[in-house]
Amino acid sequence: MSAPRLYHPDLEPGRVRLNAGEARHAAGSRRLRPGDTLTLFDGRGNEADAELIEVTAGQAIAHVGEIRLIPRSATRSLTIAVSPPKQARQDILVEKCTELGVAAIQPMHLERSVATLTARRLERWRRVAIAACKQCGRAWLLDVHPPADLAAVLASAAGFDLALVASPADEAERLSLLLQKQAAARNVLVLVGPEGGLAASELAAIESSGIRPCRLTPTILRVETAAIAAAAVILSQPPVGQ
Amino acid sequence: MSAPRLYHPDLEPGRVRLNAGEARHAAGSRRLRPGDTLTLFDGRGNEADAELIEVTAGQAIAHVGEIRLIPRSATRSLTIAVSPPKQARQDILVEKCTELGVAAIQPMHLERSVATLTARRLERWRRVAIAACKQCGRAWLLDVHPPADLAAVLASAAGFDLALVASPADEAERLSLLLQKQAAARNVLVLVGPEGGLAASELAAIESSGIRPCRLTPTILRVETAAIAAAAVILSQPPVGQ
Repeated sequence: MSAPRLYHPDLEPGRVRLNAGEARHAAGSRRLRPGDTLTLFDGRGNEADAELIEVTAGQAIAHVGEIRLIPRSATRSLTIAVSPPKQARQDILVEKCTELGVAAIQPMHLERSVATLTARRLERWRRVAIAACKQCGRAWLLDVHPPADLAAVLASAAGFDLALVASPADEAERLSLLLQKQAAARNVLVLVGPEGGLAASELAAIESSGIRPCRLTPTILRVETAAIAAAAVILSQPPVGQ
Repeated sequence: MSAPRLYHPDLEPGRVRLNAGEARHAAGSRRLRPGDTLTLFDGRGNEADAELIEVTAGQAIAHVGEIRLIPRSATRSLTIAVSPPKQARQDILVEKCTELGVAAIQPMHLERSVATLTARRLERWRRVAIAACKQCGRAWLLDVHPPADLAAVLASAAGFDLALVASPADEAERLSLLLQKQAAARNVLVLVGPEGGLAASELAAIESSGIRPCRLTPTILRVETAAIAAAAVILSQPPVGQ
């Protein structure tokens, strides 16, 4: 139906060389040939039609046409600050958040976090985000921020219209109801703690920052599921008053 | 924090033998020993505290105490009729839908479905659902129905308060807005078609059955992501008027 999408961080009209990973993708799973057309995107809103000139498993060269700027979507902008789940579940977190339209993921190191993100893992998160952008047609990459501690995340909260923390407590307000009262909020931050829960001191620091606890479903969710569910609920309704 | 949960389909007080898979789970990843306490559940609302009497990789025997009935949650009851995604993505679909509290998954064979469910795959879906129930504390299993064709799914739609089909069309109403107008709906059916889209004849049959198209996020979602997002949005708000 639509042309295959490949990523090029520095898009310009004329002849461009794709990086090795994209060349492998083009020659391998996509089975593209010279003469095939594709869409190139730079992850910062720029896209262009292009024609493949050369393609082997090792390199791909394309001729890039006119560049068009795709505006950011008019829905909310959501940042998810999350205690990284176990490695096997990290790809699901990043892929699904990208598909759903999350703007940024902020890995957050808390007392009971089960995984530490090395530079190499962070690189993998970024690759997964790019792959998901290709698949779901996003012109703007999901930003993967460098890991931060809770104090840094709390300091950033003031920059958002609405800051929430996912809570398994029965008395926490339902996210969907809370959003109806905050219908104009455009920039939203959601904190998702580790499976073992937030430490008491962390919870106290979060609450004294004015970040409101919210409940997703009546069930108990894994870290990545809580992040995905929050993204689905928040990004499925556009802000009121746009 | 809470006792490990193991599954036993025919729970009764007294001495019970766990099946081989549960025994492996108890002895292996859970490292349980004789004398350890656990919670057994039968997936139909019955739960009991139990004490392990014997446990090896091959067999586990427990002494089961009083059985208590856990009522179904007061939220909506959601059935997702879905064209199965590729195998590697099926586990994510079933696991996340179980965690989020989906009542049943109805695999649906459509013209552009990419995977056929053999009896063996269906068995795997059921195992994944049980594993996720253990983890997330559900007392009622997610039902995995046998695969059906579109005509059978459409015939079942009359039994629901609200029947919807996930649509990537810009003009489709947003699911979150549609739900606000149908706030009393308790039993909800959502159809999720294959990645290649519904065939024109399928779409016509769905629409003439009065099933309403709804849009999730502005992005394009994979099959399993659409199902998970629909579940998060629908199950995160309790029906009004309970």
